[in-house]
Amino acid sequence: MRASSRRARRSDRAAPAAPAYVTRAIPYFAYLHEEGLARLEDQADWLIQDVGLEFREDPEALRIWREAGADVSGTRVRLPRGMARDLCRTAPKSFVQHARNPARSVRIGEDSVVFAPVYGPPFVRDREGGRRYGAIADLEKLVKLTYSLPSLHHSGLMTCEPCDLPVNKRHMDALYAHMRWSDKPMLGAITAKERAEDCVAMARILFGDAFMAENCVIMGNVNTNSPLLVDKVVTEAIRTYSAAGQGMIVAPFILGGAMGPVTTAASIAQALAEAMMCCAFSQLVRPGAPFILGNFLSSMSLRSGAPTFGMPEPVSSNYIIGQLARRLGVPLRCGGSLTASKVADAQAAAESADSMHSTVMGGANFILHAAGWLEGGLVTGFEKLVIDADRLGAYQKLLGGIEIDDNALGRSAYEDVEPAGHFLGSAHTMANYQTAYYDAALSNSDSFEQWQDAGSKDTERRAHERWNRLLQDYEAPPIDAAADEELQAFMAQRKAAMPDAWY
Amino acid sequence: MRASSRRARRSDRAAPAAPAYVTRAIPYFAYLHEEGLARLEDQADWLIQDVGLEFREDPEALRIWREAGADVSGTRVRLPRGMARDLCRTAPKSFVQHARNPARSVRIGEDSVVFAPVYGPPFVRDREGGRRYGAIADLEKLVKLTYSLPSLHHSGLMTCEPCDLPVNKRHMDALYAHMRWSDKPMLGAITAKERAEDCVAMARILFGDAFMAENCVIMGNVNTNSPLLVDKVVTEAIRTYSAAGQGMIVAPFILGGAMGPVTTAASIAQALAEAMMCCAFSQLVRPGAPFILGNFLSSMSLRSGAPTFGMPEPVSSNYIIGQLARRLGVPLRCGGSLTASKVADAQAAAESADSMHSTVMGGANFILHAAGWLEGGLVTGFEKLVIDADRLGAYQKLLGGIEIDDNALGRSAYEDVEPAGHFLGSAHTMANYQTAYYDAALSNSDSFEQWQDAGSKDTERRAHERWNRLLQDYEAPPIDAAADEELQAFMAQRKAAMPDAWY
Repeated sequence: MRASSRRARRSDRAAPAAPAYVTRAIPYFAYLHEEGLARLEDQADWLIQDVGLEFREDPEALRIWREAGADVSGTRVRLPRGMARDLCRTAPKSFVQHARNPARSVRIGEDSVVFAPVYGPPFVRDREGGRRYGAIADLEKLVKLTYSLPSLHHSGLMTCEPCDLPVNKRHMDALYAHMRWSDKPMLGAITAKERAEDCVAMARILFGDAFMAENCVIMGNVNTNSPLLVDKVVTEAIRTYSAAGQGMIVAPFILGGAMGPVTTAASIAQALAEAMMCCAFSQLVRPGAPFILGNFLSSMSLRSGAPTFGMPEPVSSNYIIGQLARRLGVPLRCGGSLTASKVADAQAAAESADSMHSTVMGGANFILHAAGWLEGGLVTGFEKLVIDADRLGAYQKLLGGIEIDDNALGRSAYEDVEPAGHFLGSAHTMANYQTAYYDAALSNSDSFEQWQDAGSKDTERRAHERWNRLLQDYEAPPIDAAADEELQAFMAQRKAAMPDAWY
Repeated sequence: MRASSRRARRSDRAAPAAPAYVTRAIPYFAYLHEEGLARLEDQADWLIQDVGLEFREDPEALRIWREAGADVSGTRVRLPRGMARDLCRTAPKSFVQHARNPARSVRIGEDSVVFAPVYGPPFVRDREGGRRYGAIADLEKLVKLTYSLPSLHHSGLMTCEPCDLPVNKRHMDALYAHMRWSDKPMLGAITAKERAEDCVAMARILFGDAFMAENCVIMGNVNTNSPLLVDKVVTEAIRTYSAAGQGMIVAPFILGGAMGPVTTAASIAQALAEAMMCCAFSQLVRPGAPFILGNFLSSMSLRSGAPTFGMPEPVSSNYIIGQLARRLGVPLRCGGSLTASKVADAQAAAESADSMHSTVMGGANFILHAAGWLEGGLVTGFEKLVIDADRLGAYQKLLGGIEIDDNALGRSAYEDVEPAGHFLGSAHTMANYQTAYYDAALSNSDSFEQWQDAGSKDTERRAHERWNRLLQDYEAPPIDAAADEELQAFMAQRKAAMPDAWY
């Protein structure tokens, strides 16, 4: 009964104007030839069969593997060739993650594409406040901005780390911010089993037991410990989220030359092996549980060994992992608007664009870090967030392809306009101009004189004005008062049950 | 004899370390489905057959069309369906444009890709000097920078307009700057027939009659007057360059809603019709003359009607025109590092990257405006030039694909490195790290603290330092003294023969 009233809470909302996610209408791109893909898959199989993966700190994970027939020796798990791939077959090719506002529910997988903001930076930066540790007040602003930006379909979770709150409690405040100040879908915490459980419990309050038993309403996102190590943070997150029928994203983060071989091919194969093993594990925990194959490759500076982003090797890997994920038949998370730049300048934009262009064209389905990422993921940029979001709208259009019908071919226009004439006032132009081109919010196309008269503002300055205006105009989506109260009571009780921890 | 001594001048140079052009090693991308491509081709055929193109101000062009069997009515030229496409068949699928340094000669067409700088801006901008009219001193600097940047394979021509020189004479000073301060291949002028002829004559001095009779050493680049108008600037350029066996690039520049219908499909088809007709015309002038099919589409701001760049509609057109050019079998010029931004900021970089990523992945062979373009093509940015060039090196690597061989798969690395270990010191890393990743010159991957200690320099500031350092380090390539003298004598004689014209 309680569950059904919660289910009702979800449904009585007006549909937003913007689409809740993107549907790709263009073909996929075969960057790497068939033989190359087969060699990468063979290498992943070899890693799983011959080298094996370490599953540490979680005896229950080893028990699950042993019971499934894996070769478990100490903490090393090896699978006969083909077994991991076979286990992955029960993972859905696509699934719906429900939002508390049903009009904002997203489909993830196959031809669907979902953009989510940056995840995890301990620092934030904005043009006035400079670079500083993230706080819960920053996170709340970032949640509100993400809610206000139609090209961000998903709210994420740690859009910045709220470093002013205890590490063992902040996951609840963060999740609550998403639940309260947005009605888009969200992620839950993974850093410890009880924190993952808290998030599942809060989702249960918001969505109701019955609805949640049948549907995905929250997802955990976690990295493996490359190379070839899966620690308890990963397996416990899977044993929490997947067991509850909720979504799991496992993304090997490989800095080539450190957490994987320095060659791109080897890093791609290793990431595939690690993610495929985690997908297989999730399907042992609960066959049919939604799983997103993750991939996060970074190159390094030859001069300093520092990670670099938006470079051609990771960019090419976005295209290739897209091909591999489609062959496996599992939704893909990779890429994002990535950069090593400290500020939202030309470097940041160029690296982000090449990274993101390849990510979307390569066929990723869930794109975390799609907006706001700076400084190798250490910093969330307020200006960067809205700059990136503006480009996401362009990618959304690019994925839609172009119309080729009688109106788009516009033969009638040539009856109105002779050669050497112009189309400005033609009936065809009048009928089509409002939808003909993407309307970028931040790109300035004024004449130099107009731009100068308006204060010679560069993109960062215009972005600063834009996010402040968005916050001014922000209106919180309504929330059921009883659910809100119940969430707050849950948090108060959980927080009271443990002392603050700061590391 | 003079010709053979000139030929010899070309050959006694050491080969540069960087490749003279890019060879694409990855497959092509089918953005638009077969049926859509066929409809666009049908529309282009319909425009040529039913609407026709205007060929104005050049009776000789009409005579050539009439003689070829075209339907010429007044200045309107219509061709039976299929005739334009048939005429294009004698244009080479690819050809070599020779540089005076043979190691810098470039192949254009099929799997070859050549990057050239911006062409035509009347203004220049740099971080210290601000925005101002271009002068010959700026052009010389830009030629030297282009020569110094290995990812620019071609020198172009009007990297900025030398506005301090008479309009009827500046083409010679510009061309001489390229001939003297670079040894990369270059373009010639097209603004008037006698100026095109001057450029062909100067190329003849540098390369020799005999060599030039057999080889392409210079190319003209010209826009049609869309919609569907080809004026004498175009036909006379073709009658000069193509007649001499030299290269021609004809690029319709269509601002959708003004020079073509506002819908992207119609603009693509119109551009194809215009460029295909010019290719056909070039083959009537001289069958087998090298021709590059051009395409330049711009979207517009819905708010102001101003042209916009890097937006998803022109970005998608880069992919589609690539498909159409391959079906026609003619080398393609399109795209570039385009932006409406006034400065080298995040907008400039994002628009340039999406425009350029699609241009290179779409299969363009000759990419003018690949570096330096600002403000819709009104301004050449010194900082923008080196920022773009740095990204061109990344695209070059992206087009090369990734290695999939035993070394790249690196199984030996897993013998050295156990799961949970790290690859930093492994033999495989040591053997591969120097070539594993693109070494970007301008991307900063320092830690925040290092970056701050070094002065918190954004990309534009680092770019300013870089181009000034490149100019300091510049060394002119040697030139045969006799050829140099002859070039100068030719220019002096031609300039003395006419009064200065300033408009």
